[in-house]
Amino acid sequence: MHSYRSHTCADLNAKHVGENVRLSGWVHRVRDHGGILFIDLRDHYGITQVLADPDSPAFSELEKVRSEWCIRIDGEVKARAPELVNKNIPTGEVEIFVRDMEVLGASKELPLQVFDEPDFPEETRLKYRFLDLRRETLHNNIILRSNVVKSIRNRMDGQGFNEFQTPIITASSPEGARDFLVPSRLHPGKFYALPQAPQQFKQMIMVAGFDKYFQIAPCFRDEDPRADRSPTDFYQLDLEMSFVNQQDVFDTIEPVIKGIFEEFGKGRPVAQDWPQISYKDSALWYGTDKPDLRNPIKMQVVSEHFAGSGFAIFAKLLENEGTEIRAIPAPKGGSRKFCDRMNKFAQQEGLPGMGYIFWRDQGEGMEAAGPLAKNIGPERTEAIRQQLGLEVGDAAFFLGGKPAAFESVAGRARTVIGEELELTDKDSFKFAWIVDFPMYERDPESGKVDFSHNPFSMPQGGMEALSAEDPETILGYQYDLACNGYELISGAIRNHQPEIMYKAFEIAGYPKEEVEKRFGGMVNAFTYGAPPHGGCAAGIDRIVMLLADESNIRQVIMFPMNQRAEDLMLGGPSEPTNEQLRELHLRVIPAEDK
Amino acid sequence: MHSYRSHTCADLNAKHVGENVRLSGWVHRVRDHGGILFIDLRDHYGITQVLADPDSPAFSELEKVRSEWCIRIDGEVKARAPELVNKNIPTGEVEIFVRDMEVLGASKELPLQVFDEPDFPEETRLKYRFLDLRRETLHNNIILRSNVVKSIRNRMDGQGFNEFQTPIITASSPEGARDFLVPSRLHPGKFYALPQAPQQFKQMIMVAGFDKYFQIAPCFRDEDPRADRSPTDFYQLDLEMSFVNQQDVFDTIEPVIKGIFEEFGKGRPVAQDWPQISYKDSALWYGTDKPDLRNPIKMQVVSEHFAGSGFAIFAKLLENEGTEIRAIPAPKGGSRKFCDRMNKFAQQEGLPGMGYIFWRDQGEGMEAAGPLAKNIGPERTEAIRQQLGLEVGDAAFFLGGKPAAFESVAGRARTVIGEELELTDKDSFKFAWIVDFPMYERDPESGKVDFSHNPFSMPQGGMEALSAEDPETILGYQYDLACNGYELISGAIRNHQPEIMYKAFEIAGYPKEEVEKRFGGMVNAFTYGAPPHGGCAAGIDRIVMLLADESNIRQVIMFPMNQRAEDLMLGGPSEPTNEQLRELHLRVIPAEDK
Repeated sequence: MHSYRSHTCADLNAKHVGENVRLSGWVHRVRDHGGILFIDLRDHYGITQVLADPDSPAFSELEKVRSEWCIRIDGEVKARAPELVNKNIPTGEVEIFVRDMEVLGASKELPLQVFDEPDFPEETRLKYRFLDLRRETLHNNIILRSNVVKSIRNRMDGQGFNEFQTPIITASSPEGARDFLVPSRLHPGKFYALPQAPQQFKQMIMVAGFDKYFQIAPCFRDEDPRADRSPTDFYQLDLEMSFVNQQDVFDTIEPVIKGIFEEFGKGRPVAQDWPQISYKDSALWYGTDKPDLRNPIKMQVVSEHFAGSGFAIFAKLLENEGTEIRAIPAPKGGSRKFCDRMNKFAQQEGLPGMGYIFWRDQGEGMEAAGPLAKNIGPERTEAIRQQLGLEVGDAAFFLGGKPAAFESVAGRARTVIGEELELTDKDSFKFAWIVDFPMYERDPESGKVDFSHNPFSMPQGGMEALSAEDPETILGYQYDLACNGYELISGAIRNHQPEIMYKAFEIAGYPKEEVEKRFGGMVNAFTYGAPPHGGCAAGIDRIVMLLADESNIRQVIMFPMNQRAEDLMLGGPSEPTNEQLRELHLRVIPAEDK
Repeated sequence: MHSYRSHTCADLNAKHVGENVRLSGWVHRVRDHGGILFIDLRDHYGITQVLADPDSPAFSELEKVRSEWCIRIDGEVKARAPELVNKNIPTGEVEIFVRDMEVLGASKELPLQVFDEPDFPEETRLKYRFLDLRRETLHNNIILRSNVVKSIRNRMDGQGFNEFQTPIITASSPEGARDFLVPSRLHPGKFYALPQAPQQFKQMIMVAGFDKYFQIAPCFRDEDPRADRSPTDFYQLDLEMSFVNQQDVFDTIEPVIKGIFEEFGKGRPVAQDWPQISYKDSALWYGTDKPDLRNPIKMQVVSEHFAGSGFAIFAKLLENEGTEIRAIPAPKGGSRKFCDRMNKFAQQEGLPGMGYIFWRDQGEGMEAAGPLAKNIGPERTEAIRQQLGLEVGDAAFFLGGKPAAFESVAGRARTVIGEELELTDKDSFKFAWIVDFPMYERDPESGKVDFSHNPFSMPQGGMEALSAEDPETILGYQYDLACNGYELISGAIRNHQPEIMYKAFEIAGYPKEEVEKRFGGMVNAFTYGAPPHGGCAAGIDRIVMLLADESNIRQVIMFPMNQRAEDLMLGGPSEPTNEQLRELHLRVIPAEDK
């Protein structure tokens, strides 16, 4: 017989009754029922009940074991009495009468219980991660992650993509977030960087003539702590394709993401129709470029109904250029109590408040209530109701001013209204492509034009479009995928033509020399027959969080850092030895010397 | 029609004749045949011949294109005349008559030709890697690597393994090679390290109750340059299993490696029988722990035939303790010329020379020739011949002394003899498990005992074995897989019991406090119910090198560093900004200040 097991703890059932078997695993739970010891023995695969009474030669040894000891037992498979069968586990028909046992690994007093998963402080859970990972929830999340990544790989392979590994120790690239640096020992005073993303490499791969690249890629950003992201690294499904336009990228990644959510979404419906919404419309309709389409509320411009109306605040406001009044329809929100609560919400968010109208029927037919309705009169009120398609029992909220000033509050109000009124279908996945991002934005104070997103995207209309009088009107072939209010994917058709790239940077105030200094390697490559190309990157951690219904990223990573970017289990970061610093030609400057 | 292509450059054949198609790709080669332009258009998938004559509206544009320009063409598929069909490529039956073309990406003068792959200095190839990667050989190697990794993943999955990603920014671990350090901005003066291997993490994964782990894992070592290794990072297939013994690990990985070599070995035979050879036997038989079994030569101890013989050098030498005479049989090596050449080889390697005997038949029956034969006389000579199983036309070489002093030269001599005599079957893959590595070795000068290999291996015989009087006799459950003279895999059954680990370290002179300081995180985890576990790691770069028949590691890596650990394409490492250094609380010490 094998040294440790003839079966796993998920294998045995009524068919094995009478067999002598060997199992190894952890003591999940011990119960003493009138002199008979029952142990739930757990391994990666499942749980099997084993037991011994004083007749067993192993009884006295078995009495000594405690929770989470790792043991090996030999024994005979017995059928449980019908009334004792546990239908919840595959081994529930049997139990093992133990004749021999061996302690493979004893355990000290546990700092963290595994059985029943009682709450423990996160610091304890991270320090004893190897125990936390034995708990069912976390164990299953990690397996889910592994399966999701495997399925993504298979789906990408099925679409003709090759996975290539790009360098992890690489050149610093002065863009985006802060690099993690790696001092070079062989080149004193010089540093490598860990890649923030394989962006330049994947574009190089296209220039090198590989047609379809993907990678489950580690990305490193030295960012300040935030609850829902890892302070050091994250993984993305990174992909790039040559000879494609924007729709080709969508057609490639849509079935992959749909497939993953259908395979691992535990039956939650996955929207089949993924609308393409312009950045501008998304801001108007949802107050964000990461809309949650599970919430059916769509905001609308209702300026015309307030212009010159008796509601002086809005009427006056509309006299200023660039102002708008927008309505958030709130079906089933037609009570003064609810409307007042939402008004308070807006005040907490720093606005003066949110005007509202609600429609009721107090036995005398439909009636529009609320101060706003009185101020603008029944005709305008009715026109608003008809535009928004609302009925008795519904409400609408109104925000006014320059959209940039209230848009994000409007978006959050929409979310709260959707949730409070239970309009948002929590148990589903809905997606939207956000397209037509503007290439540039103007700083409202300095008037300076800068890239609003990725400087490497191809402007819609190419070189010609870049001569537009107002750079803010130039759109890029750049896109995001929003899922349930999160940005799941971001991507672009790249600017592969050096002249267009120089021009695009020039508009944002970067002279040619600056572009060459910062991105010389890539721009140089583009002068040797670069193909048109584009792609995107999808956040693996976020996908798994959505599938596992977890809001803490540390619940989907095997060995996460804490929020202070510390490894509590192995003790990182730590002080280097003098020898290490000497080899790297570095000296640490004490904080007070700065 | 799609903006860039209706087909790839490998798609079209006689079935498409008459169709109007669109292709995009690179100008592989241009030929002007009497006013008709022929262009081999190349993409990732293949090559299609396109052509234009002055009747084509695209002719004048097409005349301008040069090698490696990226272009899009529209045209009609025409059948080639039977005598012009190129049977070597799938599109060889057809050619495209071009009616329209567009330059997608022009190219400057090429620093490196793609067509025909002429030699270029490695610095040029690395700087213009995006061009080098367009060449067929390198392009195919990179695709091979991608396919090998995919196949490994599928095979591991098929055996019930889960792939988990372990941290890349982690704690420094004071073992083995030199760490790459990453300064922490949030914790001034402290450093992370990049993992030399996921060794501690994979053992933690076992303690966490996951049963079968693998990972295609990046490993980082700040090592001094050497031709056949990357100066920064390499990839390994890392795996670990719980509740296993050594043979279980072999049974798991053997079919994976065999399968890979059969799938990608281009028909070269893959040995089915993988012998298990003790470290001691391997040193004796092959002079190395990485034997190349394609070479049939097996060395033997022949001391008895020289003890007290007339060959005074060996006879005297054998009077010293620990000395031996070993023979390298050389079938078909029986000529004085060959024997003298091998004798010189030994002298070049720093030995006084190699004695030899060869057997010939000058018409008077078998005769043993060479000075050694005369010195020891016919009886001993014949006994040696019989022991080694040699015949007329064969030779044997002899080395004597303490084995440690000549073993490695003997190993190299065996290799040279095998190659020169064409005994080594170059076109095949042969494997051997090397087992029973000694846990400890004694420094011949200081007499100090230290670990000879991995300190975390389980000693054979456990705690009991550690009380052996001579630590050098203690063997570990540690193993390597050799393939064609390279170490392909290294692994061990781990020491999962803290008491045995403390004792093992104590023998090597490390007190308990030292073990806790260095490996506290892992030893601590072992006190909470650790399972018996073991595993191994296989070198991905080496596997692909063997399959691609390449001896330079840079031929199987997409974007390698040069041997001075520089990224010539993107320019790394580079000087940090003052702002970056300030944020990291670091100062660079100029070399002269050291």
